[in-house]
Amino acid sequence: MAETHFNKIALIGIGLIGSSLARVIRQKNLAETISIMTRSQATLDEARKLDLGDEYSTDYGDVVRHADLIIVSVPVGASASVAKDIAFHLKPGAIVTDVGSTKTSVIEQMQPHIPEGVHFIPGHPIAGTERSGPEAGFAELFEGKWCILTPLEGTDPEAMAKLTAFWEACGSNIDLMDHEHHDRVLAIVSHLPQLISYNIVGTAKDMETVTSSEVIKYSASGFRDFTRLAASDPTMWRDVCLHNKEAILEMLARFSEDLSSLQKAIRWGKGDELFELFTQTRSIRREIIEAGQDVDVPDFGRQIASEHSDK
Amino acid sequence: MAETHFNKIALIGIGLIGSSLARVIRQKNLAETISIMTRSQATLDEARKLDLGDEYSTDYGDVVRHADLIIVSVPVGASASVAKDIAFHLKPGAIVTDVGSTKTSVIEQMQPHIPEGVHFIPGHPIAGTERSGPEAGFAELFEGKWCILTPLEGTDPEAMAKLTAFWEACGSNIDLMDHEHHDRVLAIVSHLPQLISYNIVGTAKDMETVTSSEVIKYSASGFRDFTRLAASDPTMWRDVCLHNKEAILEMLARFSEDLSSLQKAIRWGKGDELFELFTQTRSIRREIIEAGQDVDVPDFGRQIASEHSDK
Repeated sequence: MAETHFNKIALIGIGLIGSSLARVIRQKNLAETISIMTRSQATLDEARKLDLGDEYSTDYGDVVRHADLIIVSVPVGASASVAKDIAFHLKPGAIVTDVGSTKTSVIEQMQPHIPEGVHFIPGHPIAGTERSGPEAGFAELFEGKWCILTPLEGTDPEAMAKLTAFWEACGSNIDLMDHEHHDRVLAIVSHLPQLISYNIVGTAKDMETVTSSEVIKYSASGFRDFTRLAASDPTMWRDVCLHNKEAILEMLARFSEDLSSLQKAIRWGKGDELFELFTQTRSIRREIIEAGQDVDVPDFGRQIASEHSDK
Repeated sequence: MAETHFNKIALIGIGLIGSSLARVIRQKNLAETISIMTRSQATLDEARKLDLGDEYSTDYGDVVRHADLIIVSVPVGASASVAKDIAFHLKPGAIVTDVGSTKTSVIEQMQPHIPEGVHFIPGHPIAGTERSGPEAGFAELFEGKWCILTPLEGTDPEAMAKLTAFWEACGSNIDLMDHEHHDRVLAIVSHLPQLISYNIVGTAKDMETVTSSEVIKYSASGFRDFTRLAASDPTMWRDVCLHNKEAILEMLARFSEDLSSLQKAIRWGKGDELFELFTQTRSIRREIIEAGQDVDVPDFGRQIASEHSDK
């Protein structure tokens, strides 16, 4: 395993992901200096109050200069401007990575600005909650989760090994993927569910004959499962939509086609067809639980969680 | 408060809801005799093994005769045939109720068969998990949950008071509603989310360029939230679709319209429109948590639940 101690790690952006990184870096002693940068003074003050790092600045130069590892954790739409602003300060041999939910667009935005001799390796930790901001982070966020790296052709093997070891030290399992394939996989497992959640919550909000207090009161019958995702950071998700457009539109089209078939089966009372679909989908849940990707307690363990909610 | 002790309660159907009722009736001593009926001998044997009742039979007459309260907990499509089969054995003054997810259809199916002098009061406890069968039930299922009653015109007040007291003794809060309004409310808060879950899981299953093992591996990024509902009992949900068709088709149409707008906003890169939708939906989550209808821990408290999953 490669060395996992960096002299200085610069965190650009200190939201849920950035602040979780800050916490795990300190907990596992992965850097001599944690340097935190964000454009908002209020957010920076919050990070300082939470004692997340060693240095704080709203200036790119201050944090990037001398850093060995620079982790960009900003909404993907800001990638180009961040790359442009840090480029001048990057030291030779430094590793630049990101945590964005779309990879092709981030590469197009950042790659042209990265100077010769600096290693740019795009990444995406598959970890998060519906919360956002520096307070929402926690050191265990990446534990047992996948982190996908999408290295470009000719990436330096030593830099790859160092970044891999870093994420492993954070508790993640590493997967390598082509950036275009990443964007299609994430479009179906993450971006489509997210959009469907936003959409159904929007539909319910607009009902005239069912009041919004009724929607809230009886949400335990299914609706509330969708509201968790729909509570996620709007800026982040706006940017994902705008920067993984092709793949997302394809998944939405497929979903709509399937929904039309389902609608038709209901309209014509095709009980057997409905029964077959409703049976097939059961097996996926079982496989997800067997793969350790969800908890095998009814209702996501909400009863247990509510007993702990005073924590 | 009315008397909550019945001489004999007959449970027709002993799945998740029926078996939870059996457990809470015994725990709270709500009946002298719990009589259990189901058509499947295997399920009946399972109920007996779990010691859920005092009498067991696959014959309607055996359990319904002498019963003061008859609770029908079967897929809604079976309501007419059950009503026909129990009708002859019902004693004057008995209360017949059900737990079905659609009310207009259940009333149309059952009401014509109920003899004069027997009180038929349709009901729907808003409680459940993705599990099914007699083993899945538990006594606390109804605690703090809403139970909607949709009494017909001219319902005997004393019978209403008795049934209300019964559900309250099970831990439920009672709501009264017109049966048609019930079906529209449930179509949006329960039936639509359920169908969308089935549909998205189906769409993911059919992908050619993303493997099903990738869908499972990265499901924590959003997809898995949908798989819980999609693991529910297929027979129950087939029947709901067939028996609340009009309301469901209307909700599906509204949802599809909204989805088309969303699709268009993505295609044309309308970031402001996306941001506005994604912001509005956040507030509903907050209201649901304030109303005590979901837990206020990130990720539905899955981390806590996984620590308890050996229970």
